[in-house]
Order: sequence, then C-alpha cells, then structure tokens
Amino acid sequence: IVSKLPNVGTTIFTVMSALASEKGAVNLGQGFPDFDCDPALVDAVTHAMKTGLNQYPPMAGVPVLREAIAKKIQALHGHTYNPISEITVTAGATQGILTSILCAVHAGDEVIVIEPAYDCYVPAIELAGGIPVFVQMTVSSEGYSVPWDKVAAAVTSKTRLIMVNTPHNPTGSILKKADINALADIVRNTGILILADEVYEHMVYDGQSHESLCRHPELAPRTFINSSFGKTYHVTGWKVGFVAAPAAMSAEFRKVHQFNVFTVNTPVQYGLTEYMKNPAPYVELPAFYQHKRDLFREGLKNTRFKLLPSEGTYFQCVEYGAISDLPEAEFSKWLTTEIGVAAIPVSAFYNTPKESGIVRFCFAKKDETLRLALDRLAKL
Amino acid sequence: IVSKLPNVGTTIFTVMSALASEKGAVNLGQGFPDFDCDPALVDAVTHAMKTGLNQYPPMAGVPVLREAIAKKIQALHGHTYNPISEITVTAGATQGILTSILCAVHAGDEVIVIEPAYDCYVPAIELAGGIPVFVQMTVSSEGYSVPWDKVAAAVTSKTRLIMVNTPHNPTGSILKKADINALADIVRNTGILILADEVYEHMVYDGQSHESLCRHPELAPRTFINSSFGKTYHVTGWKVGFVAAPAAMSAEFRKVHQFNVFTVNTPVQYGLTEYMKNPAPYVELPAFYQHKRDLFREGLKNTRFKLLPSEGTYFQCVEYGAISDLPEAEFSKWLTTEIGVAAIPVSAFYNTPKESGIVRFCFAKKDETLRLALDRLAKL
Ligand SMILES: CSCCC(=O)C(=O)O
Ligand SMILES: CSCCC(=O)C(=O)O
Repeated sequence: IVSKLPNVGTTIFTVMSALASEKGAVNLGQGFPDFDCDPALVDAVTHAMKTGLNQYPPMAGVPVLREAIAKKIQALHGHTYNPISEITVTAGATQGILTSILCAVHAGDEVIVIEPAYDCYVPAIELAGGIPVFVQMTVSSEGYSVPWDKVAAAVTSKTRLIMVNTPHNPTGSILKKADINALADIVRNTGILILADEVYEHMVYDGQSHESLCRHPELAPRTFINSSFGKTYHVTGWKVGFVAAPAAMSAEFRKVHQFNVFTVNTPVQYGLTEYMKNPAPYVELPAFYQHKRDLFREGLKNTRFKLLPSEGTYFQCVEYGAISDLPEAEFSKWLTTEIGVAAIPVSAFYNTPKESGIVRFCFAKKDETLRLALDRLAKL
Repeated sequence: IVSKLPNVGTTIFTVMSALASEKGAVNLGQGFPDFDCDPALVDAVTHAMKTGLNQYPPMAGVPVLREAIAKKIQALHGHTYNPISEITVTAGATQGILTSILCAVHAGDEVIVIEPAYDCYVPAIELAGGIPVFVQMTVSSEGYSVPWDKVAAAVTSKTRLIMVNTPHNPTGSILKKADINALADIVRNTGILILADEVYEHMVYDGQSHESLCRHPELAPRTFINSSFGKTYHVTGWKVGFVAAPAAMSAEFRKVHQFNVFTVNTPVQYGLTEYMKNPAPYVELPAFYQHKRDLFREGLKNTRFKLLPSEGTYFQCVEYGAISDLPEAEFSKWLTTEIGVAAIPVSAFYNTPKESGIVRFCFAKKDETLRLALDRLAKL
C-alpha cells in the first residue's frame, strides 16, 4: 500500500499524552478537561436512549437540534441560518473540517493556511488534492497576530479557500473586528471561500467577544463555520459538532457528508437539543475558564517563563528562553520527564520547521491539577 | 462553489422514507429496525457516561473494545487480528468505507465495483480521484450471483481495489467458499487490495455461515473488513463500526481516520465493550431475523410478487413483472402511494441505468408491521 499521507505520523497530542502517562506527569498537553460534564447532559442523552431514539436520524442531523443551533447563532451573532438547508450536524469539528475541504477544494486548488495551524488542516487539503500555501503569524511579547498584507500577497488565481481559526489554537489569540474587515477586503470580488474553525467560540476572556465570521455580511455568504459541542460542554469524547454555511455551500457539504459518516449519533443529538434549552452553561463558560487562566498565569509569574497573552481557548503559550536553549519538542519532552508537566511544542503546528522558544499549556483542568502543575513548575 | 460530486442527489433511502411518512405508508424501504435495542445496552452506555468516560478516547478506539472485536473475530472465523495495530473503531461503516478508499486509492486508480452496489461506494471512489469499473451481477429466478470471469476480465494494470459486500445489500445474497476462492484466484500475484463490506455479518440464514474474507489466508493480508454495530445490535443511529486490516493497511487507514473523525464516541465504545461480553445477542440474531424473513416470505406467497432468495441481510427482493410494467422507481412510488407500502427500487444501486423489474423490501420490522404491510400487499 502506497501512502497517501507519507508525512503523517502519530499526532503530537497522542505522543505527549502517552509520555505524560508513562512518566506520571501532569498532562497540560492535549486539550481536554480532566473534569466531568454536567450530569444533566448525561441524563438528557440517557433519556433519549431510553425513549427509543436509537435509529438513523435524518442525514443532516435531527431538525430540533439544527433549530436550536440556528437560534443560538441568531441570538449571539445576529445572523440567520436556515436550519433546514444551512446547518449540518457533524461527528465533531475534525469531520466537519475534512468534509468542508473535500467538497470545496478541487485537485490543484490552493488553500491559504495561517501558521501555527491545527494539525488536521494540511492533511485534509492534501487528501483533496489541494496545495497548502502558508502564511506565518507574527509573534512578539504582545502576542500573535495575522499579517493580513502577507495573506493578501499569498492570494493567486488558484486560491480556492482561506482557513481561519478564532479563538486560535495553539496561540490563544482571537480575531478582532479589524482582522475580519481585513479578510473581507482580501476576498471581495473573488470567488474565494473561507473555512472558519470556531470550536472555542464560547471561550473568550476579559470581556471581549467572539467575532464569528457569520457576523460580517460579506463573509457569511462564503464561509463554512465549524464548531463543536465537545469543548463547550466538557465532552470532548462525544464527537458532535456542526457546520453552518449558506445553502449552496451546505448542499455541497452534505453531498460529501452523506458518504462520509452519513449522519451522527441520534441520542446524543436529542440530548444536546434538550440541554441547549438552558443557555447558562455557555453563557457562564468564559468566567469559568477565565478563572482557570488567571489562576494559572498568576502561578507562572513565580517562574522564569514569559507569559504571552491568552485571549481565548483552553491554552496559555509561554516563552521559555530564560530557562532553556532546547528546541521546542526537546524542551517539551524534558519538561514532561524531568519536571513532571506535559506541554505541547508550538513548532508542531508549523509545516515549515520553525522554532520560537514557545510551548503551549492547556488550563482546562481542575484547579487542583493546575496547582500541582504550578508547584512543579515553580522549580524553574 | 463547483461540485465535486455533480451526480449526487438525495439518497433513495431518504427520498423513500420521506414519501412513506408523507403518505402514511408502512416503511419497508430504508434499512433500519422499527423496534428498539436491548435495554441492557442502553444501561451499559449510561453507566460509562455516569462514570465520567466522556473525554477523548485513543484515536484508534478504546483498547478494551478493540480487544473484544479481535476476540470475536478469532472465535467466529479463526483469524487473529492484533487489536493494537489491526483493529480501528469507526463512526459507522460508511466512514470506514470512505476512509479505506481515501487511504488506498490514488488519483487515476481503478476500483472494481460489483453492481448492484450500496450507494456510498462510487462517490467515495470519486472523492479519492479513482475510477469505478463496473461488473454486473447475474440475476435469474435462482437469485443473484457474481460472474467472477467478468470480474477477472475487468482487472487491468491500474486496478487498485475490488469492492465486495457479503451478505449483500440489496440482493440478500451471500458469497460462498467457491466465490471467495474465485476472488483469491483473481488477485493472486497482484497488488490488488480488497474492501469487504460485511455489515450484515450476523444475518445469514438457513444454517449457512458468513464467509468473512478474513477466513481466506491469501485474502486476509490484503483486505479491509468493514463492519458495524448498528445492524447487529439494533442501533443504526449510534454510528459505530470497525475496520479490521493487516497492520500496514491499518496504519495507512489510521493516517486518514485521525484527520477525518479523529476518534469515536467514548461512552458508546465502553458500553459496547461491556455488552459484547455476552455473545447471545449476535448468536441468536440469525434465528431472530430468519423468523421475520419467513413470516414475510410466507405472506408474499398470497401476492403476484415472485420471491428471489434471501440468504442474509435485512432484505427480500421480489420481481413484480406480473403486477406492473412500470420502471422500478415509478413502481416503488406507486406502491408507496397507492398500496401504502414503501420499497426501494434495485435500479438505484446501479450506476449504469438498469431495469430488472425488482424491488427490495426490508423485513427488519416488528411482526405486526410486517403483517400490516402484508395485508396491504395482499391486494396485489
Ligand atoms: C484531537 S486531540 C487534540 C486536542 C486539541 O484540540 C489540542 O490539544 O489542540
Ligand atoms: C444509511 S440509510 C440506508 C440504510 C441502508 O443500509 C439501506 O437501506 O440499504
């Protein structure tokens, strides 16, 4: 068998989680909570299973869940998606992203990827026969930002899609109104589509708000918005998300979706529908995570790590230049093995090898887990 | 947006289910049970959720489930798969099939598809940039069979994969030892891989047995076996299946899998593991469905439908030439609308338009549902 993805190995998340568990390290690497979801959510799914909702749902998802999603987007962002033709339930955001790319990118099309970038984007582009074109974010002690002039310069007549991610993994930065306007300027009068990965949509801190791309009247008509329930409701293992896109794009999305997963777990869809009736869980999420971010940042001030901003997501990036000269991957391994705290090298999010002396910690952990990690990191 | 799958519309299953519900017809079209699963299975999944098993599982599936799958295959077919490197849990067989094809088929490769064929095969081949090459089954009043000489004649130097499906949807036929040997003769000394869709593995009747392709020592090393828990445990809406394949093929499968769905619902995986400890549900399945098949066949003897054999699956095919001259799609619609029983035209499973005067009924229904359908069909 000749590999279609010769450069793909085991993901950095799996590698670091395995090392963390082998070494008994506190795992601040892979992004998932070490606490449980709301029992009410479990009860809602259990109720659906016990009510006999266990056979095929409609291909695009159960109508009531699609309505609940459209209603939430309307309430938060003022944009109206038709739940019948414009919302599709996915088996998690990764599936939504691959499916968006498979339906939109033809062989030879170029796709602009802003680095650092989550690891599933490039293999998805390659499977579609597309060509990734990379633009690197600029980084300073002020944090990461997107150089839109370089994105504009990367556009060619072959550009089919631009991938954006806000709130951004791994950097914890968020796109502001000015960023969104700059992106709109770039794609105006072109046929370029946008894929927005917004899985951390409900984790934005310090009173800022999430600028979903559907808020922009010129961008909404050309954007696939991908999101996930796993992050919002502390159930990363449930694998349910959704894609919101204009009807013509959703129609093409669904052609691929129906022959990829066909559809998504029925009782989980009904359970989520019930649970979404109460907006409190996502309304309260920023405060919940901001507390964890602040606890973690406060503790890191006792170390020689230099904190970068964390405006959103599960993640805190730090510069470790004052501690070590090691390359990021080596430093992450050393930190896991010798100090007992696992982190993720930001270099793993670059296709072009790049060392910035920065690693990513996940603070989606119990306060006691964060304190234990901080105790260990205080040695630095 | 330019379509990647210009020929794809809404699947025939969705179309006929919608028409059935609009017309109040008994839905013997789409293949799913109208009865519920074992409450013990629901309890096992609920227990996993309540135990806090709600975060990311390992990418290839939870180890205990992979072990249970390997053990079952060993017990039933005498073939040993390594659960660590050769079994991957999927978000249903459709996802397993697309992922197998995406990892194995390069642009320009030919894939042999035996028609009638389940509707997800061809779009998956097209998304991979492959070229489907069709061979039609022969059909007589004895039923459907694969003309292996024609399959052999369809092989070229570009043939990368042969798709087989046993027990077979829509025809209800099964491959016998002689078929498997004929296939082995064709691929011997070639690099051709095989994708075996075995989702109805536990539904084989009249004391015959399921000839899984893993039983053949020359075929196992080149075959992706795709199966599903949805059919076996009456939970078509749960969307969990698995792929068994030799380590080198599984490694390539997982490269694509990890960037397609990444992984599969954690509590469902643990619940299935617990439930699989008791083999009774799948051991008793053939008798359970054979009773339904026999009830349905017996009733159809009062009509002018001509019964074809049904050796396995959920399905009974019938010739309707004595009743109507309509093409299959028209006849299915007429049957749904005028007689109140939905069926699926077998023509929908052909890429090359083909009319055989045959429709497919699904008998995975409560006895009372089957009796109601039979009452209505008795008018014919
Ligand atoms: C799918 S495992 C990776 C989880 C995650 O989103 C991350 O750690 O960045
Ligand atoms: C995925 S909907 C189709 C169900 C099925 O397997 C069939 O009816 O053939």
